[in-house]
Amino acid sequence: MLPLYSYEDLFSFANSVFLKIGCNDEDAITATQTLLSADLRGVDSHGIARLIGYVRLWENKRVNAKPNISIIHQTPSTAVVDADRALGLVSAPYAMNLAIQKAASVGTGWVSVQNSNHFGIAGYHALLAVQEDMIGIAMTNASALVAPTYANERMLGTNPIAVAVPAGQYPPFVADFATTTASNGKLEILQRINEDCPSGWLQDADGMPTQNAAALKEGGALLPLGGDKVHGSHKGYMLGSIVDIFSAILSGANYGPWVPPFPTYIPMPQNMPGKGIGHFFGAMRIDAFRPAMDFKKDMDQWINRFKEAKTTSGHKEVIIPGEPEKQMEEERIKNGIPLLQPVIEDLTQLAQKFSLQVPPSM
Amino acid sequence: MLPLYSYEDLFSFANSVFLKIGCNDEDAITATQTLLSADLRGVDSHGIARLIGYVRLWENKRVNAKPNISIIHQTPSTAVVDADRALGLVSAPYAMNLAIQKAASVGTGWVSVQNSNHFGIAGYHALLAVQEDMIGIAMTNASALVAPTYANERMLGTNPIAVAVPAGQYPPFVADFATTTASNGKLEILQRINEDCPSGWLQDADGMPTQNAAALKEGGALLPLGGDKVHGSHKGYMLGSIVDIFSAILSGANYGPWVPPFPTYIPMPQNMPGKGIGHFFGAMRIDAFRPAMDFKKDMDQWINRFKEAKTTSGHKEVIIPGEPEKQMEEERIKNGIPLLQPVIEDLTQLAQKFSLQVPPSM
Repeated sequence: MLPLYSYEDLFSFANSVFLKIGCNDEDAITATQTLLSADLRGVDSHGIARLIGYVRLWENKRVNAKPNISIIHQTPSTAVVDADRALGLVSAPYAMNLAIQKAASVGTGWVSVQNSNHFGIAGYHALLAVQEDMIGIAMTNASALVAPTYANERMLGTNPIAVAVPAGQYPPFVADFATTTASNGKLEILQRINEDCPSGWLQDADGMPTQNAAALKEGGALLPLGGDKVHGSHKGYMLGSIVDIFSAILSGANYGPWVPPFPTYIPMPQNMPGKGIGHFFGAMRIDAFRPAMDFKKDMDQWINRFKEAKTTSGHKEVIIPGEPEKQMEEERIKNGIPLLQPVIEDLTQLAQKFSLQVPPSM
Repeated sequence: MLPLYSYEDLFSFANSVFLKIGCNDEDAITATQTLLSADLRGVDSHGIARLIGYVRLWENKRVNAKPNISIIHQTPSTAVVDADRALGLVSAPYAMNLAIQKAASVGTGWVSVQNSNHFGIAGYHALLAVQEDMIGIAMTNASALVAPTYANERMLGTNPIAVAVPAGQYPPFVADFATTTASNGKLEILQRINEDCPSGWLQDADGMPTQNAAALKEGGALLPLGGDKVHGSHKGYMLGSIVDIFSAILSGANYGPWVPPFPTYIPMPQNMPGKGIGHFFGAMRIDAFRPAMDFKKDMDQWINRFKEAKTTSGHKEVIIPGEPEKQMEEERIKNGIPLLQPVIEDLTQLAQKFSLQVPPSM
């Protein structure tokens, strides 16, 4: 059983760290909320476990804690934002809110971001729109770990897509997924316990399918959703490519194998064609299409019908995207967030570095 | 070797059929162009092979050949279109052109369509935007053939997504794919030659994985992209759901298991909550984000870099989405379109019905 930490204590700690690296009060709160939304929703790989990584990016001068985030081009429904090397945890909510403002004005808003850094979980940003009775869309590119169909080279990141849709009686529908068969986080868990991974997740350094979970660290690559051509990996490759194009080619960020890595020990790519990493956000006002009440009534009926679908043996219910994460959030707000020992060690190291108290376990 | 038919002869024949069912001159040309774009691009299942199916929908009064297609709600960047039971082959280009007009005016345009019918291939509609230096997006729901993860019931259609992106020197990037592991068309080919299908494509009537290609006809279901949970089928299920929501819940069309079927011999669903089937279209003007020249230069570099990626054994090059279809189009315009015997028989039947000449083979 892992030790549990209260959301409030982790919030206070992460907020202090962001203040220590030079964020202003508002940005520190935004960054902390964004970061910890991952822990609350059960995406532990993208939450406070990454705090030390963000600090390292700041130490390497790749993150600017006092950015001048600016709009470099816009139309009534679009904008390109230069994040000025901000924490993606800060620039992403900025860009999403800009998309929301544009949607309030002309029905939809679409914002592509250059010169940014990793933004936490995509679902958090998409959900910002739902509060305004809008559909929210968020995606980001990331450093190359994925080999397209027929490639023996890492060309794309895990390039996640999130789409959040308001419902009426039910919690929002939230799809939030990497465009690979499996996330790097799941792979790391198998590596830690020294187990093989399922087929279709990885190829080795020779480009051959493998079930060795360590293959990614040994020059292999993650596979696009689908795994291989006969199971539709070209579709996963296309999805990852679309995320790359919308996030980086529309904005002027780096793309493909040139996206800068999150870990600072990995060397930066040579001859980078753009600035930082790229994100893409969309907001669509529901009542720019239909009265929100009618839409939500149909969403409720959609969700209800899927919940009532006949199931395969051993399964009680078809899962509604976003529902398990919502339940996890409620559970963790109440009972606390479990942290692995290596994460606690990282937090201890940060506490020493910045003369802070290590957050107490519950 | 299959007999070949010239694009011009098939065009003339299909155009005559659409005129015979009562389309006006303009709609008949639009429907024919849309339909035959599938044959040109090598998506034979969605081209002239379906002409007789559209005629049957008209005979069953489900297609209105003289529709009054109208905008029932709009904002500067959005619209909902009532297709008035038009051929999707006609209402989809109408809606895509409306999205393009809105993008010309405010940067992007997003149109959801209710009360429509099957619209041919999604890629054709998305490509309409590329001619205007825009990114085009097209998707549609379809009658339920797909079991979500853990479901033993058909709840979603193959719900395809197309995204077309202009490049400079290279042909456009065109992703166009069903959100299932495999298309129904590929399955039909295996059934015809009495072969098993790969794992991950299908489940049987008991909800168990099967490689029996006939299982779909025997009460089974197609599987979402990913195949099973461990290979990411929940991601394919989420993608299909997003298409369903954008196409039908934003517009007021039918969704989930209530989407009316294309074949007229399948009974209509009971208690349908909306009107017809739904589509969703988007157009994003490139220069609403960046100068189109800069964007295209980066797209060319993206494509070039992916073409130069190291390949796995036995493969010459990583495929750029849209390139094989473009090559197929050039080849078939020049050398003709091969038709299977059952398709030729259907065209012969249509020729008799409407007192037309069967198109001659080359």
